[in-house]
Amino acid sequence: MAHLSASFSATIRADIDDRPGAFAELARAIGEAGGSLDAIDLVRADAERKVRDVTVFAQDAAHVERIVAAVRALPGVDVEHVSDRTFLMHLGGKIEMVSKSPLKTRDDLSMAYTPGVARICDAIANEPDSVWNLTIKRNTVAVVTDGTAVLGLGDIGPEASLPVMEGKAMLLKEFGQVDAFPLALRTTDVDEIVCSVVAVSPVFGGINLEDISAPRCFEIEDRLNAELDVPVFHDDQHGTAIVVLAALMNACRVVGKRLDELSVVVSGVGAAGVAVTRILLQAGVTRIVGCDRRGAICEDRDGLNGIKAEYARLTNADRFAGTADEALAGADVFLGLSAPGAVTIDGIRSMAADAIVFAMANPMPEIAPEDILGLAAVIATGRSDYPNQINNVLAFPGVFRGALDVRASAITETMKVAAAQAIAETIGDDELGPEYIVPSVFNRDVHPAVAAAVARAAEADGVARRG
Amino acid sequence: MAHLSASFSATIRADIDDRPGAFAELARAIGEAGGSLDAIDLVRADAERKVRDVTVFAQDAAHVERIVAAVRALPGVDVEHVSDRTFLMHLGGKIEMVSKSPLKTRDDLSMAYTPGVARICDAIANEPDSVWNLTIKRNTVAVVTDGTAVLGLGDIGPEASLPVMEGKAMLLKEFGQVDAFPLALRTTDVDEIVCSVVAVSPVFGGINLEDISAPRCFEIEDRLNAELDVPVFHDDQHGTAIVVLAALMNACRVVGKRLDELSVVVSGVGAAGVAVTRILLQAGVTRIVGCDRRGAICEDRDGLNGIKAEYARLTNADRFAGTADEALAGADVFLGLSAPGAVTIDGIRSMAADAIVFAMANPMPEIAPEDILGLAAVIATGRSDYPNQINNVLAFPGVFRGALDVRASAITETMKVAAAQAIAETIGDDELGPEYIVPSVFNRDVHPAVAAAVARAAEADGVARRG
Repeated sequence: MAHLSASFSATIRADIDDRPGAFAELARAIGEAGGSLDAIDLVRADAERKVRDVTVFAQDAAHVERIVAAVRALPGVDVEHVSDRTFLMHLGGKIEMVSKSPLKTRDDLSMAYTPGVARICDAIANEPDSVWNLTIKRNTVAVVTDGTAVLGLGDIGPEASLPVMEGKAMLLKEFGQVDAFPLALRTTDVDEIVCSVVAVSPVFGGINLEDISAPRCFEIEDRLNAELDVPVFHDDQHGTAIVVLAALMNACRVVGKRLDELSVVVSGVGAAGVAVTRILLQAGVTRIVGCDRRGAICEDRDGLNGIKAEYARLTNADRFAGTADEALAGADVFLGLSAPGAVTIDGIRSMAADAIVFAMANPMPEIAPEDILGLAAVIATGRSDYPNQINNVLAFPGVFRGALDVRASAITETMKVAAAQAIAETIGDDELGPEYIVPSVFNRDVHPAVAAAVARAAEADGVARRG
Repeated sequence: MAHLSASFSATIRADIDDRPGAFAELARAIGEAGGSLDAIDLVRADAERKVRDVTVFAQDAAHVERIVAAVRALPGVDVEHVSDRTFLMHLGGKIEMVSKSPLKTRDDLSMAYTPGVARICDAIANEPDSVWNLTIKRNTVAVVTDGTAVLGLGDIGPEASLPVMEGKAMLLKEFGQVDAFPLALRTTDVDEIVCSVVAVSPVFGGINLEDISAPRCFEIEDRLNAELDVPVFHDDQHGTAIVVLAALMNACRVVGKRLDELSVVVSGVGAAGVAVTRILLQAGVTRIVGCDRRGAICEDRDGLNGIKAEYARLTNADRFAGTADEALAGADVFLGLSAPGAVTIDGIRSMAADAIVFAMANPMPEIAPEDILGLAAVIATGRSDYPNQINNVLAFPGVFRGALDVRASAITETMKVAAAQAIAETIGDDELGPEYIVPSVFNRDVHPAVAAAVARAAEADGVARRG
C-alpha cells in the first residue's frame, strides 16, 4: 500500500550543472527512488549552474532520506539543503491571535481599553447574559486534551499533543468559522481536569474534548456537562459516531436495507465504539454486538467495568459470546474501531448478502479493502487514500457552529443524529454509490448543512438559548 | 475637568431636511449641548432630505443622551438610530484566532492535521524542548484573571472582566507582536487558581496575571513562579512598578536629583504599592515610607499582615508613624497608588524643593494636578488627559516580547529595572522636561527597546534558555 503524501514531502535545494540532460537525470533519480516530483522552482541561475527548489513526495521519513541520497549521488549536483515541508509549516505553530479592529490612535485605545472598556464590563456585570454579545465567548471553543490518547500515538503528554490541537483549531475556523484555542493540560487526574476546565470556562461558548483516553473520557465529559452550561463534546466519541451514522445511512440507501433491520458487529469498545453504539441505538438500530479483545460484550461475561456492563445491558440481546470474527456470520454491518487483524477474510465472507464493512482503524484498517473486494457491497475506512473516508472533520465544525449560533447549553443525542442526517443528505440519489457514501471534507455544502440541522434540533430539544 | 472622549462617543443617524442652514443648526445644537462633532458621513440623499451619520464625542453616557435629545428636538430632523461606538467595537469580542497557513487542499490538510501532524507530535515527544519551535508556545501568553480587582470596578467576576482581558491581548499583539489568550477564571480560591494555571500552562510561553486582588495576588504569583518554568508576571504589580521607576528616573533627570538620595512617600500598599517599593529598593532608593489608610507602615505598628510586616522591615528605617500627608514634610517624591484625597495641598506644599508628585489613582488622582501647579516641579498621573501618563502599556508588551525571545524561565528584578531604564532612555536630553518624562504609548521606539533590554538582562541573570 505504498502511498506518496504531502505529509512526507521535502523541498530539496539543488545546485545543478547547466548542461543538457542534467535536470532529466535528477528527475529520473527521484523517480527511480520511488519519489514523486511535485513543484520545481528556479532559485537563481548563471551561465554554468542552476539552483532549483525541487519538491518531492515520499511514503515516509526514511523514504525522503533515500530520495535525497539518490539526488546527492548524482554527478554535477550539489544539494544545498533539504527542507521538510511539514516541519516548515509547523515552525512557530499554526495559529495566531489577531485583533478585529485597529489600535492605532488614542481614540482606539480609549474604546478598546481604559477608560471605555469599563462601560462594557459594567454592562456585563449588570446583565450577565450580555457576555455572549460583548466578548469572544459567542464564537470561541476550547480544544482540551490531556495528551493521553493522541492519534495512533497514545499517551505522549500535553506538549507533544499540541500540534494536533492547533490543527483542530484550524479546522474549526476553516470549516465552521469558529475561533478555537488549544488547551493541553499538564494533568491526567480526572478531578484536576474537571476543576481546570470549569475554571477556564467563562470565555468559552463550548468545550471540545480531544484525545483523552477511555474510560476517563466518559467521566470527564459527564461531569463537565453537569457543571457547565455550555456544550461539552468529546470528538473522538461523538464526532466519530456522527460520521459513522451518516455513512451507514447512505450505505443503507446503496444496498436497500433499513437501519432498524440491520444486524451490526462493532469491534472496539473504547471511546469511539461506545459512542457509535449509542448513536446507532438512538437512530433505531436494535441488533448490535460489541466486541473487545476478549470477544463479545455480553451480560453473561464476568469482570465488565461500569461502561461495558452498561454496554452489555443495551446490546447483544441474544447473549452471543464468541469473537468478533465469529459474530460476523450473517451480520449486515461490520464497524471496526479497533486494530488491524481484528477480523478475517473468512469472517467477512460469512456476512449476509450486501455486507457493509467500515474498517476504520488508523493508519492500518482492521482488514485491507483490497482483500475483500467482491465480498462486501460497501467498504469505508478512516484513510484518505481509499474511497469513503470516515472523517470527523465532516461533523465537528458544523456541530459547534450550529451550537454556538443558538447558544446551545448542551449537545443532545437528537442534535447528533440530525448532524448525521445532514451529512448523509448532502449526497443526492443521483450521486450515491458504493464508492461515494461520504462527502468530501472540502464539499462546502456539508458544514453549513450540519450547522443548520444542529441548530434546529437544539431548538426542538429546548437547549437553544437563542432562536 | 470636563473631558470629551471617544470612549463616550455615539454615531447618530439623522434624516435632515435639505434646506440651507439645516446642518448648521444641527451642529450648533450639538455644540450647545457640550458635545464635540467628529466625523460626518452622508448615508443617502434625495431632492428633499439628506441622511447623515454624525459622530459626536461626549463626557459620559448621560451626556451622550443629552446630546441626542438636543438633536431630536430640532425641527426637520429625524433621528433614525444611535450607535454607541464603544459598544459596537465590542460586539462579538475584539480578538479572533486565525490560521497562519491556508487549509484549502488535501495536501494542506495532510500536513497540518493527520497524517503529517503525527510526525510533529513524535518530534516533540522525543525532544520536549522542540515544543518551543513547533507550536504556538514560543509566542503565546495567557492573560489570567479571577475578576476580583478589575480596573476601578472591583470584584465584578470573570465574565465581566473579559473585555479588559481581550483588550490586554490586543495591546500585547499591537505593541509586542505577542499572541495572547484571555482566561478569566470561575474561581477565587488560591489553590484552584494555581492548579488551573499549572494545568493549562503547556501551551503558554508566559503567564500575565491581571486584576487579581491583594493579598491573594502575591501568593498566586509566588506559587506559580515556583511551579512553572515560564515567566509569571502580575502586571498590576510589576508593569506599574516598571513605568513608575522609568518616570522617576526621568523626573530625577529633570530636577537634578539622584535616586539614591531621594526620600519617597508611597500612598497605597496594595499590589502596585508593594511592587513599586520593591523595584525602587532594587534600583537604589533607600528612604521610603509606605502608608495605607491607617497611616505609615512601620515595625512598631500592631496587626500587620505578612506582606505589610515584610514591607515594614524593608522600609521606614526611622519608624515614622504619622499619616501620608504628614510624611510628605521634606520628602522629595510622592507616589500615589491609592485614592482621591489621600494627601492635601498643604501636604504637597510641605515637600522638599523640586518636589516630584505622581498622583496615579484612577480615574480621580490623589490630588488634582491643577491644584498643585507651582508646588511640585514634576507632576504625573494615570490619566491620558494630563501630561506624563503613567501607563503599564509602556512596559508589559516589551517585557513579554523580550522574555519570549530568549525563552526566559522567569522575569527577574534586574529584568524589570532594565525595562524601566529602557523606557526612560527613549526620551533624549533635548526632549526631556517637566511635562515630558514618559514616552507616548504610540512611540514605536519604546517597545523594541524594552524587549531588547529585558532579553539582555535575562541573559545576564542566567534565566535565558536561548541567546
